[in-house]
Amino acid sequence: MANEKKTVEQITNRDVDFAQWYTDICKKADLIDYSSVKGCMIIRPYGYAIWENIQKNLDDRFKALGHENVYMPMFIPESLLNKEKDHVEGFAPEVAWVTHGGEEKLTERLCVRPTSETLFCEHFANIIRSYRDLPVLYNQWCSVVRWEKTTRPFLRSREFLWQEGHTMHETAEEARAETVQMLNVYADFHQNDLAIPVIKGVKTPSDKFAGAEDTYAIEALMHDGKSLQAATSHFFGDGFAKAFDITYASKDNTLKYPFQTSWGCTTRMIGGIIMTHGDDNGLVLPPSVAPIQVVIIPVAAHKPGVIEAATALYDKLKERFRVKLDDSDQSPGWKYAEYEMKGVPVRIEIGPRDIEAGQCVCVTRHNLEKAVVALDGIEDSVAAKLQEVRDGMYAKALENREKRTYSCRTLDEINEALEKNGDGFVKAMWCGEEECEDGVKAATGIGSRCIPLEQENVGDVCVCCGKPARHMVVWARAY
Amino acid sequence: MANEKKTVEQITNRDVDFAQWYTDICKKADLIDYSSVKGCMIIRPYGYAIWENIQKNLDDRFKALGHENVYMPMFIPESLLNKEKDHVEGFAPEVAWVTHGGEEKLTERLCVRPTSETLFCEHFANIIRSYRDLPVLYNQWCSVVRWEKTTRPFLRSREFLWQEGHTMHETAEEARAETVQMLNVYADFHQNDLAIPVIKGVKTPSDKFAGAEDTYAIEALMHDGKSLQAATSHFFGDGFAKAFDITYASKDNTLKYPFQTSWGCTTRMIGGIIMTHGDDNGLVLPPSVAPIQVVIIPVAAHKPGVIEAATALYDKLKERFRVKLDDSDQSPGWKYAEYEMKGVPVRIEIGPRDIEAGQCVCVTRHNLEKAVVALDGIEDSVAAKLQEVRDGMYAKALENREKRTYSCRTLDEINEALEKNGDGFVKAMWCGEEECEDGVKAATGIGSRCIPLEQENVGDVCVCCGKPARHMVVWARAY
Repeated sequence: MANEKKTVEQITNRDVDFAQWYTDICKKADLIDYSSVKGCMIIRPYGYAIWENIQKNLDDRFKALGHENVYMPMFIPESLLNKEKDHVEGFAPEVAWVTHGGEEKLTERLCVRPTSETLFCEHFANIIRSYRDLPVLYNQWCSVVRWEKTTRPFLRSREFLWQEGHTMHETAEEARAETVQMLNVYADFHQNDLAIPVIKGVKTPSDKFAGAEDTYAIEALMHDGKSLQAATSHFFGDGFAKAFDITYASKDNTLKYPFQTSWGCTTRMIGGIIMTHGDDNGLVLPPSVAPIQVVIIPVAAHKPGVIEAATALYDKLKERFRVKLDDSDQSPGWKYAEYEMKGVPVRIEIGPRDIEAGQCVCVTRHNLEKAVVALDGIEDSVAAKLQEVRDGMYAKALENREKRTYSCRTLDEINEALEKNGDGFVKAMWCGEEECEDGVKAATGIGSRCIPLEQENVGDVCVCCGKPARHMVVWARAY
Repeated sequence: MANEKKTVEQITNRDVDFAQWYTDICKKADLIDYSSVKGCMIIRPYGYAIWENIQKNLDDRFKALGHENVYMPMFIPESLLNKEKDHVEGFAPEVAWVTHGGEEKLTERLCVRPTSETLFCEHFANIIRSYRDLPVLYNQWCSVVRWEKTTRPFLRSREFLWQEGHTMHETAEEARAETVQMLNVYADFHQNDLAIPVIKGVKTPSDKFAGAEDTYAIEALMHDGKSLQAATSHFFGDGFAKAFDITYASKDNTLKYPFQTSWGCTTRMIGGIIMTHGDDNGLVLPPSVAPIQVVIIPVAAHKPGVIEAATALYDKLKERFRVKLDDSDQSPGWKYAEYEMKGVPVRIEIGPRDIEAGQCVCVTRHNLEKAVVALDGIEDSVAAKLQEVRDGMYAKALENREKRTYSCRTLDEINEALEKNGDGFVKAMWCGEEECEDGVKAATGIGSRCIPLEQENVGDVCVCCGKPARHMVVWARAY
């Protein structure tokens, strides 16, 4: 595969068949491979390196806020999963069940964790005694399993990698502050590091996490106008604490239930990166998580001094950036296509004439613009280019979102907007009734994504029933 | 728990009941907790932080040698597991089987990976085409499941965390060189970073990994004289390649089977650290992987200037070391016991008189020796102390091993040595026949651990049958 010639013709045109284009990129950029395990994917080195960069960035953020990593078992006994009523109803239909260990039938089925609230709660009941033990701020990096019927690489697979934060607090206020704090961490990471604009909001009751009082989420608009739920943060109140009998002795020496949160994001974010930034030449990676930030390609490499100059440039840049020098015997043209496919943010071309002039050519992936850059001070120039790439990617994604955001006052307006301009975010008012949520879906095909924290008044009455509106909701078709 | 008063009386004496002492440390040093999932453990923040430091160290070593991380599915279809005969015979009896996804019975059972050779092989068959694709140097960090009957924290649990390297090479020589190289990485990591002396050797045929041609291992002697297999590295030849039909076009354009290795180490290493270095005061951690390398404890903290001086010291040290300042209102004595239990390599005590004299007191955990150290240049002094701790721990462990290593020429000598001096490594000659391996076990209770790469001649004939000897084997009771 690594030696197979790649050309841009190999991938489907993005605007002709977005789904096929997406799959093509996953395969051609060497992010994933399929295996005989249905609904699961192999994350290949280039894809996994993106995940490692995401992990490192988020892990540092979590730890800076006082969170500690732990590891819980991957199995949950059926009786433990059953302890919180809403939770089991939400997850039981989609878990994988282990029924046998070796030759023996288990006396109790174990499910492979779809999420670990129940395990954390059982542990919290053991370790929390007094207010001095609070807050407990835990996080776990692991894989989880949900038995999905239809699957797509990164976006929806039966097994996926994620992190799940689980915290316990003395008061509801503190827990709610944690929930919002972690939502803000996700939003900041998406906007600054992944260059993906997001809307922060709260889910409607019908769309809450199983067992949560409130589910917060960030929603991002993909290039095709569909929404991706990119991360969630849940406020549980003391519901699980009561179900699992977790109590603490408060400062006034009475027994109280602590308040809980959980928050998570997954390898799905890689799907979000692809669908937000990718183009007909392939992947476009934000510099912050790109496995290779800068690729150096010698031009006329056989001429004297070229490899030496390229190597010197590599040595200069490698201390500050993730840089690769490709001095293989493929043609420069092949290499350009290859690293465009792989979404490398900055490409540096260096040939005999550049060397003579003390310069090189920098091409930024997101807009394919070329610039001549002096070799003197190249480290700072590259740093500036990478920032330019991030900013340019963000602006482009934001422009797409703005272009595809429609304020509507009636169901007809929604249908017209979608028909005329294609999928996107619809801002419309809602009375708060589930019937109207369903009504919008039935009449327009789009569902509620969230109630944005930043509200706007796009009308006074519910877009569906015409009664007084309570919230502005963002609606969209979703992944 | 965090606020419960700890004293050294709380743990069992190491030489009275080693097994109970071990369990006490796992619990009292806050490394693990149990859950309702039988045979699985919860790795708590302090235990998981050790694992993160191990991971980081090894991951850097692997990557420096050109290995890349990937992620394979956690499930293996039964038919895939069955593809290599020896492999399935070795693992099928101890795997967990998933039979249902949600409400539906699966058409084929899936096992939760006990190891991932079969998945890697299936993938290799997809991605390897020509000699230019070789070598493939992959590694995976994940959890695996083996349905053990008796379990102990870190040493043997139904689920454990590990890394598994999987590589493919053009020639048998290259693959064998990789196998030995990774054995050396493990040995170096154990000796230099974990301060655990190890014997490098090859397993006898009866003790090989299921499907391997040769299994290399490092064996470490625990404080109680039992051996721990600390890491393994396998040479597969082209057996799996043939079973999975993995071929490549060689330079001379003929189709050939590549040669394969795999190598792994697990959270079991944390058990090895505990049992090699721990004492009656608790855990003793090697500085390289200790979550806290230096703890600063203010003495007479209420006196003016003490907290300020302790904080200044903390600020000075935190750039170079993992350091904690404990300015909580527990007594210094409580804190000493607490951080001894947690195995923190260096403790710094600082009080009014120290400050006046421009000094502090450094206590090294492994020998509890106190030294007065000038505050001026403290960073270098602490670095030297940490090196001293590592060297002292290694010397102590080596001394224990030397003291407990017996060269024996007959089965009677073995029994006498073990009876007189307790468990340990027995060096004795072996003819190479499995019957004699079993014979030694039946007569003495100890099994072959490995055939050391560095051979010694402790006799000319097999310790069991008296026929000409082929190898010097190290024998021991094992975890």
